[in-house]
Amino acid sequence: MKPTNARTNRQILLAQRPDGRLEARHFRSVMGTVGEPGPGEVLCRTILLSIDPANRAWMQGRTYRKQLGEGEVMSGFTLAEVVSEHDAHIRVGTIVACEAGWQEYAVLRADRVRPVAVRGKLTHHLSVLGITGLTAYFGLLNIGGAKHGETVVISAAAGATGNVAGQIARIRGARVVGITGSDDKNRMLEHDLGFQGTVNHRSPTLRQDLIAQCPDGIDVYFDNVGGRVLETVLPLMNLHGRVVCCGVVSQYDTATPAPGPRAVPGLLVVKRLRMEGFIVMDFLDQWPAAEAQLASWVSSGELKVLEDVVEGLESAPAALLGVLAGDNVGKRIVRIAPDPRYVAAVASLGSGPEGVQK
Amino acid sequence: MKPTNARTNRQILLAQRPDGRLEARHFRSVMGTVGEPGPGEVLCRTILLSIDPANRAWMQGRTYRKQLGEGEVMSGFTLAEVVSEHDAHIRVGTIVACEAGWQEYAVLRADRVRPVAVRGKLTHHLSVLGITGLTAYFGLLNIGGAKHGETVVISAAAGATGNVAGQIARIRGARVVGITGSDDKNRMLEHDLGFQGTVNHRSPTLRQDLIAQCPDGIDVYFDNVGGRVLETVLPLMNLHGRVVCCGVVSQYDTATPAPGPRAVPGLLVVKRLRMEGFIVMDFLDQWPAAEAQLASWVSSGELKVLEDVVEGLESAPAALLGVLAGDNVGKRIVRIAPDPRYVAAVASLGSGPEGVQK
Repeated sequence: MKPTNARTNRQILLAQRPDGRLEARHFRSVMGTVGEPGPGEVLCRTILLSIDPANRAWMQGRTYRKQLGEGEVMSGFTLAEVVSEHDAHIRVGTIVACEAGWQEYAVLRADRVRPVAVRGKLTHHLSVLGITGLTAYFGLLNIGGAKHGETVVISAAAGATGNVAGQIARIRGARVVGITGSDDKNRMLEHDLGFQGTVNHRSPTLRQDLIAQCPDGIDVYFDNVGGRVLETVLPLMNLHGRVVCCGVVSQYDTATPAPGPRAVPGLLVVKRLRMEGFIVMDFLDQWPAAEAQLASWVSSGELKVLEDVVEGLESAPAALLGVLAGDNVGKRIVRIAPDPRYVAAVASLGSGPEGVQK
Repeated sequence: MKPTNARTNRQILLAQRPDGRLEARHFRSVMGTVGEPGPGEVLCRTILLSIDPANRAWMQGRTYRKQLGEGEVMSGFTLAEVVSEHDAHIRVGTIVACEAGWQEYAVLRADRVRPVAVRGKLTHHLSVLGITGLTAYFGLLNIGGAKHGETVVISAAAGATGNVAGQIARIRGARVVGITGSDDKNRMLEHDLGFQGTVNHRSPTLRQDLIAQCPDGIDVYFDNVGGRVLETVLPLMNLHGRVVCCGVVSQYDTATPAPGPRAVPGLLVVKRLRMEGFIVMDFLDQWPAAEAQLASWVSSGELKVLEDVVEGLESAPAALLGVLAGDNVGKRIVRIAPDPRYVAAVASLGSGPEGVQK
């Protein structure tokens, strides 16, 4: 174990729980101290922080995890390097996926960190090979059961999960139609990622636009947003259609959630639709196989990786506000520290890591 | 073939499609003629008419079948006797399940009638062994996947489908809690049908009553009603709970359907719930096995048959209005003609069928 108590630990706290829309003033940056790992614990240095719409949902209470409290370090998925350990059976230097939260260092129980067999870029392990990509994979295939020749519609389609779900649908031979709030994003989806069609949810003729893009109806709707878009899509579903309930971005950042879609449950009976929610943890035993499949698609070029990386822990609040406003393209990640492999490579050339930015 | 053109055919038509609540004035009784079967057709004499909430839904348009038009004979499931046939390969005298509608005679294509191997009382083939019982069976087991030790909540629990679903849940070792709008019905469910608990949906403390009756939460909700009861049940569901969307009685008889439940889709994600609609026709290939299982439970006494039989075709409109108002207990059936087996037995004793009432 290296001595760690001399280091400082920059942290971002949830200063105040938002009543309505989340704003920068709800966060506070503080300088804490670096903890010492106790028996069975590791000290992790955060390298990359995942920014997810779910970060906002965790402030609302009553989700699949405990509500985030005021004055607590913001929760978040991270990729980190183990920098010291105490009888934890994890080698110092190991890259791990964990929930270090919005801070530079975190002491975690060894059984709460997952060593990562790094393939290529570290960022991929928070995007396509991480929780985001796995969510897209299990949502589309295990929950949605998307099949060759079916029509798959995806909302927040340029988002972290949506773009991967859409590409998997395309790879599996479905017709994939993306919904975003921007014509620029839609052009990118069609030209760069192979979506067969796109629709802008701000269009006054959203329903007609969807009908035009889905001439054979909709078999699978991968829903990241809920609200008005869900209500518009449901009546266009085919018999035995499946709605993958992945997230509800339209409802996270408000004190006044919309009522549910009018078609529920009447249309579910008439059309024998299935709506099903899930989280990626439900498929933990299938993660290795899914990750290998995703990595194979990435390396063959069939699956393009869309990332939106910003620099520095202090950027995290604005990065989250931006994701909630839909201004990201692909997976938004905050880089907290340089890739240690890069640092090591530079060091081996006889230069120190100081000044290295990535 | 017997000559049939001398007979008259009493029919009840949908005279006018209702805008809001269905009333007796929307029906009209007429005296039609009895048709002649053409090639491949049979003439059926209606014995029993099934009264179902779905009869009301069929007037609304856009269901799994074409909307019922004004001036058309009311649609309805029936049990009938084949009284003549024309190259149809069905023996005269065969008892068939069919959709003769609200009339005494109907000419039907032979491939649209299903010969019934009569077990015991004819009425059972419209209740526990008919579409109603099969709907309960497939809904609870195939869609809901109710398991031993789970808590199953059923709305419209004294209704035709609900009471059977509840009894199957009890037989399968689940804790079953029924919701009705009447304390009398609730007492009957607990004392006669073995429900472990009941709740009255008119109670001002519906949510608290449900919590009290379901101390371990709710795993399966068999929903026959939608609306406010569904919205109240959803937040009480356990992780990975299943909502069987069987019907929406609260919404059939109104021009102003309620908005959907607020929990959709947010709570579906958080609790990984599945909501799924179905109709019994989706499981046609499994009908014989299910019917045999239901018949076995009936003959062992484990499954009690709850029927509510009224007499005469002219009673049908009031019978349907009553079902929509929830005043039936068990399966409501209208008897149009006596059981031909009874008629034959009386005839064999040297007396004619005239004056025989059942």
